[in-house]
Amino acid sequence: MTRQELIDLIQKRRSFLCVGLDVDKNKMPQHLRDEADGVFLFNKAIIDATIDYAVAYKPNLAFYEAMGIEGLVQLKKTMDYLHSLDKAAFTIADAKRGDIGNTSQQYAKAFLDPQGDYDFDSLTVAPYMGADSVQPFTVYEGKWVILLALTSNKGAFDFQFLPADGEHKLFEKVLETSQQWGNKENMMYVVGATKADMLTQVRAIVPDNFLLVPGVGAQGGSLEEVCRYGLTRDCGLLVNSSRGIIYASTGMDFAERAAEEACKLQRQMAAVL
Amino acid sequence: MTRQELIDLIQKRRSFLCVGLDVDKNKMPQHLRDEADGVFLFNKAIIDATIDYAVAYKPNLAFYEAMGIEGLVQLKKTMDYLHSLDKAAFTIADAKRGDIGNTSQQYAKAFLDPQGDYDFDSLTVAPYMGADSVQPFTVYEGKWVILLALTSNKGAFDFQFLPADGEHKLFEKVLETSQQWGNKENMMYVVGATKADMLTQVRAIVPDNFLLVPGVGAQGGSLEEVCRYGLTRDCGLLVNSSRGIIYASTGMDFAERAAEEACKLQRQMAAVL
Repeated sequence: MTRQELIDLIQKRRSFLCVGLDVDKNKMPQHLRDEADGVFLFNKAIIDATIDYAVAYKPNLAFYEAMGIEGLVQLKKTMDYLHSLDKAAFTIADAKRGDIGNTSQQYAKAFLDPQGDYDFDSLTVAPYMGADSVQPFTVYEGKWVILLALTSNKGAFDFQFLPADGEHKLFEKVLETSQQWGNKENMMYVVGATKADMLTQVRAIVPDNFLLVPGVGAQGGSLEEVCRYGLTRDCGLLVNSSRGIIYASTGMDFAERAAEEACKLQRQMAAVL
Repeated sequence: MTRQELIDLIQKRRSFLCVGLDVDKNKMPQHLRDEADGVFLFNKAIIDATIDYAVAYKPNLAFYEAMGIEGLVQLKKTMDYLHSLDKAAFTIADAKRGDIGNTSQQYAKAFLDPQGDYDFDSLTVAPYMGADSVQPFTVYEGKWVILLALTSNKGAFDFQFLPADGEHKLFEKVLETSQQWGNKENMMYVVGATKADMLTQVRAIVPDNFLLVPGVGAQGGSLEEVCRYGLTRDCGLLVNSSRGIIYASTGMDFAERAAEEACKLQRQMAAVL
């Protein structure tokens, strides 16, 4: 999906909500836990319930890999379903990959190649290994690399705020240096909602790139603050909620409750747009 | 595998060689490319040919993921085969994972859990997200996290050498800070052979931890230099070669040639031990 297509989708749905499909079998509704394809059926129900309120879906690979190879079969079925829908959605493999150049090429093939098992629109990537670990993800037409800049967790303070040179912290240096590796048509950044007050500094370096913002909801980030400091003329934000939507209820009404939570966020977003 | 078991294995085989199983179908011998289970059969032949000269095997996940779900089936068969052998080998999932705490727990389950599909001894992890992204990998008894410190690629110079504080570069800060997250029984570090002259600085901070050293061979690193600066009383090194061994020949003699290359490295290692 190109940048313009994403912007059009955001305007059409009046939403920049991303739903995190972080499926843990132990948190799924009881009636789906032992069912064959239970994970896919859960995702399908969540997608059907939320797609009018959301523009993006973000499965975190860890949750699927933890189920073994069968988990990846469930992920593939989920992606096949998303691709089959008339309603468009931007898809994010939250995989936090990255390796030396020839190896990152293989990861890019795994997740972004239209002939591959998943055909995601984008992939999250860790920056520690530098240019050649990131650039292979920028070569697929209409596909995106989403680089970790400032993450939402406590461990973000261990390295990301270190004074990387005289004037910049490490996360700022990552933003600045990586601007040479891609552009606003193929590169986004992860900036945690729990650090919304940092968005002013982020926007000073990357005024136009889309930001993927996790941490609203269960992790305590505020949508209002994220919008105040991060919104651009083109929106420029994808705000993710995972647990707050998909586990709004663990009963038979999980999909209806997910729809309600997604709808609440969509209304707040529509008011801002 | 515990630290003592690894040290015993190194002494017994007089080797600290790790064979990188980075299987690319396009580089495999022609007669295996179209065979069902060709990737597994290739790995099996490489393992059989090299296990008397090597103590560790390191499949890089990217190469398997690039083949889609079928690639992971081939990886599982490879791991099942390694677990079935009488001859021990330390296994490394070169996956470079890492995410917020509850998500890293899922990755740990995926790769290290004895009940999981793979049951690896260890996993490579990227440090950017800090403590809670790394610690979940240290809780499995006799299993290891192998943290990226100084990587072998050109992109390593983008961030890893930044002056993280007055006296330390970022990779040194990663080594120093992470010493609080694990110990020499459950934490190793990746230090590229292409930066062997940096091993003195690395050893000043982590005198006892094992180091996984990629980059000998195809990437140009020198085994002699790595040993000069990195070896400890307990060996303390796992030196990886991937392409130099597994693609020593792409003909019918690929396994014999792999054995020869592994044997050459083992002899150099035995001379040092």
